[in-house]
Order: sequence, then structure tokens, then C-alpha cells
Amino acid sequence: MNKDFEILKKLIYEINDIEHAAAVLNWDQEAFMPEKGISDRVNQISTLSKIAHEKFTTDKMGDLIEKIKEKIKKVNPESDEARLIKVLDRNYKKSVKVPSELVTEMSKAASLGQQNWAIAKRNSDFSAFVPYLKKLIELRKQYAKIFTPYDHIYDPLLDDFEPGLKTADVKEIFKKLKPSQAELLNKIAEKQKIDNSFLFGVYNKKKQRSFGADVITKLGYDWSRGRQDTTEHPFTTNFGIDDVRITTKIDKNYLPTGLFGSIHEAGHAIYEQGIAKELARTPLAEGASLAIHESQSRLWENLVGRSLAFWKYFYPKLQNIFPENLDGVSLEKFYKGINKVAPTMIRVEADEATYNMHIMVRFELETALVEETVNVKDLPEIWNLKMKEYFGITPVNDAQGVLQDIHWSMGAIGYFTTYALGNLISAQLWECINRDIRDLNSQIEKGNFDTLLHWLRNKIYMHGSKYEPQELVEKVTGTTINPAPYIRYLKAKYSDIYSL
Amino acid sequence: MNKDFEILKKLIYEINDIEHAAAVLNWDQEAFMPEKGISDRVNQISTLSKIAHEKFTTDKMGDLIEKIKEKIKKVNPESDEARLIKVLDRNYKKSVKVPSELVTEMSKAASLGQQNWAIAKRNSDFSAFVPYLKKLIELRKQYAKIFTPYDHIYDPLLDDFEPGLKTADVKEIFKKLKPSQAELLNKIAEKQKIDNSFLFGVYNKKKQRSFGADVITKLGYDWSRGRQDTTEHPFTTNFGIDDVRITTKIDKNYLPTGLFGSIHEAGHAIYEQGIAKELARTPLAEGASLAIHESQSRLWENLVGRSLAFWKYFYPKLQNIFPENLDGVSLEKFYKGINKVAPTMIRVEADEATYNMHIMVRFELETALVEETVNVKDLPEIWNLKMKEYFGITPVNDAQGVLQDIHWSMGAIGYFTTYALGNLISAQLWECINRDIRDLNSQIEKGNFDTLLHWLRNKIYMHGSKYEPQELVEKVTGTTINPAPYIRYLKAKYSDIYSL
Repeated sequence: MNKDFEILKKLIYEINDIEHAAAVLNWDQEAFMPEKGISDRVNQISTLSKIAHEKFTTDKMGDLIEKIKEKIKKVNPESDEARLIKVLDRNYKKSVKVPSELVTEMSKAASLGQQNWAIAKRNSDFSAFVPYLKKLIELRKQYAKIFTPYDHIYDPLLDDFEPGLKTADVKEIFKKLKPSQAELLNKIAEKQKIDNSFLFGVYNKKKQRSFGADVITKLGYDWSRGRQDTTEHPFTTNFGIDDVRITTKIDKNYLPTGLFGSIHEAGHAIYEQGIAKELARTPLAEGASLAIHESQSRLWENLVGRSLAFWKYFYPKLQNIFPENLDGVSLEKFYKGINKVAPTMIRVEADEATYNMHIMVRFELETALVEETVNVKDLPEIWNLKMKEYFGITPVNDAQGVLQDIHWSMGAIGYFTTYALGNLISAQLWECINRDIRDLNSQIEKGNFDTLLHWLRNKIYMHGSKYEPQELVEKVTGTTINPAPYIRYLKAKYSDIYSL
Repeated sequence: MNKDFEILKKLIYEINDIEHAAAVLNWDQEAFMPEKGISDRVNQISTLSKIAHEKFTTDKMGDLIEKIKEKIKKVNPESDEARLIKVLDRNYKKSVKVPSELVTEMSKAASLGQQNWAIAKRNSDFSAFVPYLKKLIELRKQYAKIFTPYDHIYDPLLDDFEPGLKTADVKEIFKKLKPSQAELLNKIAEKQKIDNSFLFGVYNKKKQRSFGADVITKLGYDWSRGRQDTTEHPFTTNFGIDDVRITTKIDKNYLPTGLFGSIHEAGHAIYEQGIAKELARTPLAEGASLAIHESQSRLWENLVGRSLAFWKYFYPKLQNIFPENLDGVSLEKFYKGINKVAPTMIRVEADEATYNMHIMVRFELETALVEETVNVKDLPEIWNLKMKEYFGITPVNDAQGVLQDIHWSMGAIGYFTTYALGNLISAQLWECINRDIRDLNSQIEKGNFDTLLHWLRNKIYMHGSKYEPQELVEKVTGTTINPAPYIRYLKAKYSDIYSL
């Protein structure tokens, strides 16, 4: 086995290098590329995607995987080697079905989609985006259909982000979640509104950036293996375990955007920086799934970063930096302000109690689009109806409505769902963590995040994508993805804040 | 022919995409990469180099080139198509001889070399760099020997940068150049020293950067197709005709570093931004050679940027920005200050009259290294002896001596030579330009660079690398590379400044 395995690893390393090179090009495109660089960049990224795909889908690769798969049956099925082969086998069987031309076409459509979405959003003109989105949905359906038979055409799309998860599972989870969230929101709506006007003053960008950097340093972000830049849409990307970068958007007139955005992306990055070195340059050196990934960004952003304990430690420091904004604002008032619940048009600004509802809107629309029960051109109208139904508000324009998110413009159908699942998982983990670390709260109050980080590294981060998401969640918490802990968490938190 | 040509172009475009992707990774490595990202980055860049090399050296590629070469004989030999095939044929015949493993090894040795050179330079410890440089020289010799027979082992190395040029040509040119330069320097040494102390004050970095940006904008650098970042070693790179980036080092305590560095790199970039769109994504969309490239950076930096006419326009603006440094300094004093001739240990700080002597030192050492008449470990000693011989000074340490330049650490043997040739070509062109544009001086005094840029675009830039360097120089100036105009230029300039 050893010789074959060495040959396989060499091939896999190369493919990994190419994918990471494409990631650098993507990062640069968002962070630094001059305006007219786009057309060459589209070609470069799609060429790299094509080559990576071609190199992964050779007969030689398939033969090697098959050969090793047979021999590896004697090895511990939880070993890195056995898991790598399992993941390669799964990915190979998927990839080999996808024609190279479709990969190139999807990559190009995604680049053009992003570019034209940005223009459409700037002008709040959905119609200008319609042809690109139509093309993207068409290509996603074409892609999904390669994987017939399936229970639902959305299944193969979801599977790219959440290996093993089905559309029916998500529907089931959301069915349980929706009434509890709605009930909570109704109760909160009856209470007095929280004043968070102090978050909207003028906050110097440089100071915001520096405070955010101090916070994430304390949480465990390793700057010798990463950096932070500014982009219109924050994201985390890695070019290997030792180069995990985050980007942030900072709003001069609204503190939470940059602050919680930094913690959120750092959460993703701390996860990736914690993957075991042994998995480097293989497909195991990634997060287990997008939902698991999001569980980490949300855990750090919300369960840690919007907790009272956290601000007991950090608030005096923040007050010191922004006395003109925060001098008269007590810790309690600040804590309530950053946890204010109110329906909003914009997902990324949503509080923890409403956030998942934004995802449900998108999930319903995405499934309808690929089921062909909704037409692309009718999206704005249906979007606005759903916003009315879920939140009682109507977006003022398409830029604030259906055009607000970048995801569809990249052809990422199925992606949003993982955000809600991530929230649920974060609360499941949080209950376990608090059982294992009895004095976690008082550690956080003292600005000590080491035990927490250590727990997460051991239970989640180091394993990379050795385990499928449901498997990992069950391994760590005892059950698969389950909305109950998140509902308990929300009820406890908001009962306190709103005296429910 | 058309069908074969289309197939060929598609293959060439892909290779071009991969090479540009590698360029993005290189740029990021210098400008932004976190410290620990290096080891993954080394792998990524060498994987891309290997793939580009493999894709270029297939039998299919060779067959296509041969087939088209036959058919293209009927086409105008100066057409883009005919020239592309000519260049591809030349490059193919060279590349196909180089084993893939050697390409990977050279790429890795270059990455490691750069990294360890930086450390060795920081500690001024040449011995720490010896094993890496030894390896690099070894690989370069191995590479050169692939191309036997040759007149000199340095020929194939030089040919990578200056297609068609021979070591003997360079020796001949330097033989003519050396005595005239030495004579001029002796005459200047007898004259009163120029005071340029005002260049060493404290110059705010942000203001320096902004003034530099204003200058290069005026010269014609297109920011919608480029950007400027800060690196330890300034360079220009392109990821396509529409994304040509420059980097600059700014010294708070010495104005010329950032100012002339910006103009120099912008010179390279304006060249690449001027290449005809029709040549995009092919090997013709590059400068004709490094010497031609350097002729452009030096033309803009020195013949334009260190001229009196240029500062008649820009000096009042500069004075306005730095009144505390320049208020008492007349235009004449400033002009003389930036053109002060004095031997220095550092090549990049050398004036126009001594610069080529630094190159001759390096040329002599490089040829000796590959001829094996000098050992790597003895370099510091011989370096210092030559510095004494040429300039009458001895470097204070290796960081200021043999370790000062990055080039050898990347395995770039033959590269330095092109700097001196670039100087010579810039003066050859300058004589032609001044014949064609009679009032150039008064245009420059008014800050008008359009006619000059237009001339250069038409005669040089748009052609990319359609012509070999000697061919292009002869086409434009009537003779091949010739030191006489540069000597005339130096004599005229310094006779005036030093009243010789």
C-alpha cells in the first residue's frame, strides 16, 4: 500500500497547491485587484479550476483510490489515512461525473455573476442581474441533474457544502425551529424597545480596526499565520494551514459591523489554523462542512462575543478607546444594545433571534428556483412577499432586498442553509462546553479563552474534515443536528435581556 | 492553418494563465504574505511552474508549432501570428530540453534562496547563505549545460533574459564602456563635491507616496490597470496587460529612494501597459527583453526624471509639500543634489555615472562563478577587492557588500547585465526621440509627457516581444546596442553639472 499511497499523496498535494493558488487569486480579486484586471482574472481562475478538476478526475487517480481502498480495510477506519481515502473516494465519485467544460463554465459564470451582481446592486437594478443569475441557476440545475437519482434536486447542491445532509433533513429541522423562533419574536415585540443609538455614532475606522485586532488576538488568532484586510464582503480564506486570512468591512457609522465581523471571520480562521499539521495539503485540511465552519464563527461571534461575560472584560477597554461615544453608556446598556432584537431587511445585520428566519426565506426561494416553481425574474416580488410574511417589513429597494447577498452571484445555491445549521450546532456545542468547563463564564470575564480554545481544538478543529458534519456533531454532542439547544439558548438569553 | 492555430492559442492561453497565477502568488509573497506562509507558498509556486512547463513541452505542442511553422511561411513574417510562432518555436526548443524535475528544483531553490538570503542579509552573515547560493549556482550550471554547444557557459543564462545576445557581445560592449566611464569619474573626482544633505531630512512617508503617485500618474501610469504597494525590494509585475502592478520602498530619511523608485517601476509598468491588446495571453505580451525593459525604467527615471526640464515643472510642487526640507533649496541646487556623483557601496543608490561599474563587478563575478574560476565561499573577499578596484571603497560588511542584491538568491544569473545594457539603450533611444520631437524639453518643462509616451508606445511598447532586443534596437535607432550615446549623454550632463 505504501508505494501507491505515496504516489497518490503526491498527486493530491499538487491539486491542493492549484486550489490554494486559485484561492490567492480570489482573495486578491476581492481585496486588491484593479478594476480592469477582472477579465484576465476570470480566465486565470477558471483555468486553475479546470486543471485541478482534470488532475483529480484521471483514471489513474480512480485506480489508485480503488487499489488503496481495498488494502486499507485492515487499517483503523478512524486513522488519517483511512479517512483521507474515504473522502477522496467520495469526492472522486462526484467529480468524475462532472465534465471539465461544465467546471470551466461554472467558474466563468461565477466570476461574471459576481461582477454584474455588484453593478446591479450598486444601481439597485435586479433586471440587469437577471441574465447572469438565470445562467447560474441553469448551470446549477445541470450540475445537480448529473447526480440522479436523488430525493430532491437540491440534495446534490447541499451535499457539496454538507456532505451527507439531505433537503428533507433541513426541512424537518426548520419545521421544528420556525414556530419557536416566531413565538419568541412575538413575545419580544410586546416589550419595550432597546435603545442602541450609541452604536451609530462616528467611530474612527483605524481605532475600530485596532480594537478588533486586539480582541481576535486575545481569542487566539495567530497573526504569524494570517492577516486581515478590508473588503466590501468579509470572508475567510486559506492558502494552507499556515496562511489563513480574514477580511473585514468597517463602517465608520456603525460599530458592530467591523467588530462582530472581525470576531466572526476570526472564528472561521481560528478553526482552520487549528487543523492538525498531519492533514496539510490534503482535502482533510478543511473545515468538516460549511455548517460546522459557521458553528465556529457564530460561537465566537455570538455565544462568546455577544455575552455579558465577554464584555465585562472588554467593555472598559472599548470605552477607553471611544470615550466620546460610550462614556455615558453603562455595561448593561451596551450589552443590551448589541443584543437588540428587531426585524431588519438585511441578513448580515440581523440579531440572533431573527437571523435564522432570513435563512428560511432564502432556503424556500432556492429550493423553489431549482424545482422551477419560481422564475428568476419574479424573485424580487416573491422576496418582498416573504419579508412581509416573516418580518412584517418590505425592503425599500432590491439592493436592500433580493440583491443584498453575494452568494447566488457565485452560483452558491445551498450555501445559506449552512448558516442556520451553524447557529444550531454552535448552541449544541455550547451546552457541552459548559458541562465540561464549569467555570467558563468566569474565565471569559477574566479574558481567558485558552481552555475554550483548547476544547474546540481537540474536539473539532484538529480533525479537519475527517468526519462528515452529522457524524462529527454526534461524536461530540451525542446527537445529530438538533434545534433544541439553540432555542433554549435564545430563550434564556432574551428572557434575561427583555425580562420575558 | 486556422484550426491548428486556434488549438495552439487555446493551449498557450492556459499556460499564460498559469504563469500569471504564479506571478500573483509571487507578488503576494513579497507584499502581503504572513511569515509562516512561506513553506506552502514555495510548493504552490513550484507546482504551477512545473505544470506550465509540462503543458508547454508536450509532443502535441511541438507538432502544432512545426505544422504551423511550415504553413506560416506564406504569411508576412512581421505579422503577430508569424512572430508568435517564431517565439514559441524558440522557447519550445529551449524548454523541451529542460527536465520537469529541474524546473521544480530551480523554483524551490529560488524560494528557499530568497528566504535565507533575507535572513543572511539581516544578520550580515554570508556564510549562512553559502549552501543556498551554492545549490543555486549548481542548478544554473546544470541548466546551462543542457544547451551545449555554446561559446560560453554564461550564454544560455543570458539568453533567457536577452534572446540572441552572447557573452562575447557583452564583453565587447563593456570593454568600450569602461575606460570612458572611468575617465569621466576621474574628472568629476577633481571637482568640488555637491551638497545633497537636504535629501536626507525627515520626509513624511505618506506625503512621499502621494507625490510619487501624482508624478507617475502624470507620466502615464494607468491606475485602473494597476496598483502600488510597499515591499522591501521594489519590483513590477503583471497578471495580464490590464493588471500591471508596481511596488516601492519608501525611506523616511532619504527622499530619492521612494521618488525615483516609483518612477523607475512606473517606467517598467507603462511599458507593459502599452503592449497591444492583440498580443494578450501570449508570450508576445511581455517586454522584448530585460534590457529593453530596463531601458524604459531608466529612461523615465533618469533621462526624464533626473532632468532639469522635469524639475522645472515638478519642483515647485515638491517644495510645496515639503517646505520644511526644501524652502531654502533652489531648483539648481536640488537638480545638482539629485545628480550628485559619488562612489557608493550600494548599487541601487548609485548615480548614473557610476551605476554601470556596479554591473561590471557583478558580470565579472557571475561569469567567474559559472566558469568555476571563483568559489561561492570566496565571494565576499573578491567582491570587496573589486569594489576597491572600481570605486576605491570597501563595504563595511557583507549586508552592504555581496549580500546587497536579491538576484542571485533567486538563481537569476545573467540578470544584472541587462541593467547596464538598459542604460545604454535608453540613451540610444533618447537621441532618436530628441531628433523626432524637437521641442521635447519644453514639453517636459510644461509637464506634458503625451508626445513622448506616444512615441515610445508606437516604437517600442505596442510590439511586446515580437522582436529580439538587438533587432528592436536596430529597427528603432539604426544600430544594435552601442555604448556611444550613453557616454555622450553622461559627458554632456555632467559637464554642465560639474563644469568639466
